Amino acid sequence: MKRKILPLLTALLCGLSSNAAYADGLISNVNGITLDEEGKVIRFEAMLIDANGNVSQLLTSKDKAPKQLDYNHDGKGQIMLPGMIDAHGHVMGLGFQLLTLDLSGTNSLEEALAAIKKYAADNPDRKWIIGRGWNQEKWGLGRFPTAKELDSAVADMPVWLERVDGHAGWANSMAMQIAKIDEKSVSPNGGRIEKIDGKPIGIFIDAASELVQKHVPVPLPRDRDLALAKAQEKLLSLGITSIADMGTSIDDWQAYRRAGDAGWLSFRIFGYAAGTEEMVKIAGPGPTPWLYDDKLRLGGVKLYLDGALGSRGAWLKKPYADAPTQTGLQFLSFSDLRNYMARAAMDGFQPAVHAIGDAANADVIDAIEDLSQTYGGDRRWRIEHVQIVDPADLPKLGQHGIISSMQPVHQTSDRLMAEVRLGQERLNGAYAWQSIIKAGGRLALGSDVPVESADPFAGLAAAISREDADGQPFGGWLPAERVTREQALAGFTIDGAYAAFAEKKLGSLTPGHRADFILVDTDPLLASPSQIRKTKVLETWVGGRPVYNHIKKMDEK
Amino acid sequence: MKRKILPLLTALLCGLSSNAAYADGLISNVNGITLDEEGKVIRFEAMLIDANGNVSQLLTSKDKAPKQLDYNHDGKGQIMLPGMIDAHGHVMGLGFQLLTLDLSGTNSLEEALAAIKKYAADNPDRKWIIGRGWNQEKWGLGRFPTAKELDSAVADMPVWLERVDGHAGWANSMAMQIAKIDEKSVSPNGGRIEKIDGKPIGIFIDAASELVQKHVPVPLPRDRDLALAKAQEKLLSLGITSIADMGTSIDDWQAYRRAGDAGWLSFRIFGYAAGTEEMVKIAGPGPTPWLYDDKLRLGGVKLYLDGALGSRGAWLKKPYADAPTQTGLQFLSFSDLRNYMARAAMDGFQPAVHAIGDAANADVIDAIEDLSQTYGGDRRWRIEHVQIVDPADLPKLGQHGIISSMQPVHQTSDRLMAEVRLGQERLNGAYAWQSIIKAGGRLALGSDVPVESADPFAGLAAAISREDADGQPFGGWLPAERVTREQALAGFTIDGAYAAFAEKKLGSLTPGHRADFILVDTDPLLASPSQIRKTKVLETWVGGRPVYNHIKKMDEK
Repeated sequence: MKRKILPLLTALLCGLSSNAAYADGLISNVNGITLDEEGKVIRFEAMLIDANGNVSQLLTSKDKAPKQLDYNHDGKGQIMLPGMIDAHGHVMGLGFQLLTLDLSGTNSLEEALAAIKKYAADNPDRKWIIGRGWNQEKWGLGRFPTAKELDSAVADMPVWLERVDGHAGWANSMAMQIAKIDEKSVSPNGGRIEKIDGKPIGIFIDAASELVQKHVPVPLPRDRDLALAKAQEKLLSLGITSIADMGTSIDDWQAYRRAGDAGWLSFRIFGYAAGTEEMVKIAGPGPTPWLYDDKLRLGGVKLYLDGALGSRGAWLKKPYADAPTQTGLQFLSFSDLRNYMARAAMDGFQPAVHAIGDAANADVIDAIEDLSQTYGGDRRWRIEHVQIVDPADLPKLGQHGIISSMQPVHQTSDRLMAEVRLGQERLNGAYAWQSIIKAGGRLALGSDVPVESADPFAGLAAAISREDADGQPFGGWLPAERVTREQALAGFTIDGAYAAFAEKKLGSLTPGHRADFILVDTDPLLASPSQIRKTKVLETWVGGRPVYNHIKKMDEK
Repeated sequence: MKRKILPLLTALLCGLSSNAAYADGLISNVNGITLDEEGKVIRFEAMLIDANGNVSQLLTSKDKAPKQLDYNHDGKGQIMLPGMIDAHGHVMGLGFQLLTLDLSGTNSLEEALAAIKKYAADNPDRKWIIGRGWNQEKWGLGRFPTAKELDSAVADMPVWLERVDGHAGWANSMAMQIAKIDEKSVSPNGGRIEKIDGKPIGIFIDAASELVQKHVPVPLPRDRDLALAKAQEKLLSLGITSIADMGTSIDDWQAYRRAGDAGWLSFRIFGYAAGTEEMVKIAGPGPTPWLYDDKLRLGGVKLYLDGALGSRGAWLKKPYADAPTQTGLQFLSFSDLRNYMARAAMDGFQPAVHAIGDAANADVIDAIEDLSQTYGGDRRWRIEHVQIVDPADLPKLGQHGIISSMQPVHQTSDRLMAEVRLGQERLNGAYAWQSIIKAGGRLALGSDVPVESADPFAGLAAAISREDADGQPFGGWLPAERVTREQALAGFTIDGAYAAFAEKKLGSLTPGHRADFILVDTDPLLASPSQIRKTKVLETWVGGRPVYNHIKKMDEK
């Protein structure tokens, strides 16, 4: 694959200063929709792209098309939208999901065990069986699965499977033996070894996962390159042209750079480093420039303040409704959170803090209030997930330019579990999209891929309906928190760009922006949620170049 | 500085595909000298440079200059040479030498202590006083200096000073306290804590240095950027346009990339990673492409098999003449050396193994013989330094395409010390340049900067004379090992390029090569060694662009 893309991309790389690489062109006969930088809807019938791969003009039927064109691409009357921006995902996580055992489609423990057994039989050369995507809630298990159950599928190879949210791991007995886990093993800070009668059952929450994870063979660079190529192919096929990569490691970064250097990086990655050490290692004294024709930048840092709700790692103000002795996990002390955020802010990096529980959200809001005194200007402090917020804290999300980076599909996946974990009275501030907007906050929407599918049309549908793929609950869960179609589209386009300091380049098809667009068969401003879910992406273009076509793959392998 | 260079270099980066960035030009009225790829001398009077920054034609007075020129630069009758290639240096080591205390000019312990005391007084805000360049042999001390002596200069701040060869460190008492070094401290593998009557004296040889080094604050990325800028300025002013960086860390690499990304990298770095782990981290599944218009590549790995002669770390077959119980340090076991070399070779990386003592050289030659069975083709196995070779092993340096990467000035600096360390009978295979060439070997010459000055004209003079800067010993030390002027020039140009797989691009001014050249006031093929040493570099050009001028700095700060 790489070899064929190389000449194409080499031209791309030098496009900005060379007229040879690009040509002026027209995408005509489209039903075009975009938002401008203020969120206003613009409809158009054709789009002119300049020699730099930027939008130069939007045309309606009244406008005359210019005569001198290097190409005229017929949009065949389809819907044109800006390329979707996923404001929160894990690029390499998706890539490795596509390369390893994926349990996200399993609906019961038995189904999962069968899939694991088959995968092990199909891959006898693997030193470890690695996978992810299990969800005991979806299985209706009412408890965690165990190492013994896993042994019944595979006992003669170590098996290590991440939960769907990445906040728990499930090991078989051989994996635990290798990791020397036994009754004497103690839960580390920020994590928990699940035990019954003092015996580890095979489930490791948050930081405890590292006890097993560190024994898993590290992927080779060629594995990483393959994973990146797979992730890219997947995202482009879903209409995603840009993604915020939440937790970029130096090894991830080096893979992105290899792709950029070799000329096959075809989507845009907004990197948020996995902690301040990786941030300094990757970017040095400040954010990197936009590299590879605006395909790659390290502009911020991802910090984890708590875990996830499913594994009861979310840090709550009051105990879990279904576990009265637990309030979740606080990963960073009061002072550590502020120190890391300040470390980033002082060098112009953008902190993006994972906060799911109401205690975590309260603490990061408080930290932003503190730090805003010292680090002024246009900072765009990001909170990732913002799932459970004390209603008393909601108004604060409209202050200090805070961006609430939220994932609509999490709401539809989580709602039953959230009701059990939180109880009814705490749901008022749960997944409170419209309340945040009304408080003056700004939403950037995403998928948290590979925790959920990256499909942005599932996200748009969930955002406007708060119904799941089966239309449940009818009318939407806490429907006052639905957003409008325009708000949802903004969250997946121009506001996602804004959240990464890219709104002048990306997220809108108004002139001067990059010609990142998709052709689809459904109008998200008119269709029903269930129609939106079924949206078919026909073509994806990045920087005025076609990079995906549903009929013929752009780059044959 | 960066801001001004940016537009210039952005154009440069896209030069290959854009005619706008470059122009066809002539460098006229020069006394031009180059070697072709076979080492044959070519003289010329003018050079045409094409729009890509490559040499397109060499002209003599008989040739007609083309009429259509974008520029015609008058060489004012000066000598034009290819840009010098330093086949072995430490870019960041040079940069930090220029930013920290430099003791390389001190001629006695007293002088050094005075310099240290002054530097500490001038830099009261430093947490540690860091420096390098001391040499107890040059001071005529006959022993190592001690912590107590260092305390007499600075006692209230930790002080840590590397020996000139980088193979020993000198700490004061406060530095040793911080590092918790006392009578109970044990020398690590591959290193030695120097003790007298069981008490550490403050000197740490090779791997023992890490015991103190790990407590020294790590430089910040902005410090690295500044160091790189200083190193670049220095190298270009000396006429060096390319350097093999022997021991590139990921942090070094990230600084090089920052310079490339920001557009101010103006010389060429051939990176050899600091070990196989850094190699994989930096480059991944194979060597990187040539980046930034051939300015940067990670193509190999540096491995250390032994230490240095001055600190008695060189691994000898028989004991040191002046230390009958010691045979030096073997850093890698028989199998580790072969494993690391194979790890590199299997992915197409080029191993470059530091070997100074005759036992080390014998072992690496033996390893190359073994590995050549499995890893065939054009491998260009490199041995770095090749200082002391058993005459019985010399013929083997002509086999398997081995490159002997040697530093002429080391010979003149070391000769008295080498006589003491080795005794007369072992000198036959010492710094045996001409014997290696006669055996069919290939020399790549360098400086080992910052161990020695990077000045390539000092290297050329030493290579052809084996006399030091004072002309001692008259007629040269073991003069049979002198090389011819043409051999010396090849070692600093086309053979240095060959040693980095770059001879098709660099090292010669024949058509198709990069227009990397210097204008100097002295003809190295005609002048006396002492005249060559005084050579003045007037201009330095890289890729057809001026990057240094002795009168006006190209990029004003």
